[in-house]
Amino acid sequence: MTSDVSALLFDVFGTCVDWRSSVVREGELLNRDRRLEIDWAALADAWRAMYQPSMEQVRSGERPWTILDVLHRESLDKLSEQFGLGALDKADLDHLNRAWHRLDPWPDTVEGLRMLKKKFVIAPLSNGNVALLVNMAKRAGLPWDVILGAEVAGHYKPQPEAYLAAARLLGLDPRQCMMVAAHNSDLVAARECGLRTAFVCRPREHGPCQVTDLEAESNWDVVVSSFVELADEL
Amino acid sequence: MTSDVSALLFDVFGTCVDWRSSVVREGELLNRDRRLEIDWAALADAWRAMYQPSMEQVRSGERPWTILDVLHRESLDKLSEQFGLGALDKADLDHLNRAWHRLDPWPDTVEGLRMLKKKFVIAPLSNGNVALLVNMAKRAGLPWDVILGAEVAGHYKPQPEAYLAAARLLGLDPRQCMMVAAHNSDLVAARECGLRTAFVCRPREHGPCQVTDLEAESNWDVVVSSFVELADEL
Repeated sequence: MTSDVSALLFDVFGTCVDWRSSVVREGELLNRDRRLEIDWAALADAWRAMYQPSMEQVRSGERPWTILDVLHRESLDKLSEQFGLGALDKADLDHLNRAWHRLDPWPDTVEGLRMLKKKFVIAPLSNGNVALLVNMAKRAGLPWDVILGAEVAGHYKPQPEAYLAAARLLGLDPRQCMMVAAHNSDLVAARECGLRTAFVCRPREHGPCQVTDLEAESNWDVVVSSFVELADEL
Repeated sequence: MTSDVSALLFDVFGTCVDWRSSVVREGELLNRDRRLEIDWAALADAWRAMYQPSMEQVRSGERPWTILDVLHRESLDKLSEQFGLGALDKADLDHLNRAWHRLDPWPDTVEGLRMLKKKFVIAPLSNGNVALLVNMAKRAGLPWDVILGAEVAGHYKPQPEAYLAAARLLGLDPRQCMMVAAHNSDLVAARECGLRTAFVCRPREHGPCQVTDLEAESNWDVVVSSFVELADEL
């Protein structure tokens, strides 16, 4: 069933990289350097909670295409009062906003991608903008063949255009592409577009008390707990 | 002057890869397998001569956006009678058309790109479509960070949108990008958009009797004769 797959398309935030620990790491450096006492775990969760609503304004047509770097920054500004970010100047806030360009991979990510790259075209299919994904890949050593995702499609996942544009740009039928994600909802949307699906369980994406996406919620083509295991399966 | 450059954008056909020898190589395999006597050097030149006119139909708005794989195939079909391609079936012609996905790099290309990748974001900025560039890179070992070019811009070089879209997708000002090309005309257009420029002399792109682009025709920021020399200069 998956033997005609020639490209693997990866969700990034949570699936390839540990955004929460990385934002906390960056924030604690700011606490130290600026003598602050900001609760960065709470801020990371609050920031991420604004992610889907901010993209929904674009998906709905309420506002024109806007890249994630801009949405992230607007969300951060809205959190300023609640989390005491007033002590940070513009350069600090710009640097903090680009923490999303400096997220660390999960321990298996780079090794798994290197293995998978030998047999498949590998690409991010992320809502992150191209610059964010390029900078992240350079820093973390993610060996992508090509950067795909929302910005080149002009549509945010889970809109079908995001998945279909990736297949089209690769010159492939959707069924020749497999979406790899730690989020069941992403795979639901990918499957509706005709892509194959692989669920990678990331039970610590949301920290120690995660309650969502702890298991596969459908009969995905592949279900694994790491990218190395994915390479072994495929 | 070039110290604030953080991304290098490469023309591909002729600059990174030797399209003419590669098409001839592919064609001679067909001559052997199908017992033909097609003059592949002449065909390669004729095919390439149709390249700019075919894109001009798109640039002018005469036809909607059309990827290069389709333009290449239409041009090939037009050459069928002149070069005796009637003996080839559809599968052969499809395979031949994708010879453009299987072009060989110049001897210095891969080594130079690996060196340059350590310091810069490196990307093709080609009129080739994404699938063509991805497949070429996988086969030839071109270590791109990201695939840019006409298809993601929706405009063929030398239209300004092609260059400006690449900078925008990387989150950079045009002056932070350097166009690397073996064609003076490509650099003229890039410079008009504010990009830095590097000329790489490829005096055999058009075979032994090349008469164009044998030297830099303007004061480009860098003039070299290989990608390794470019890495040394930068």
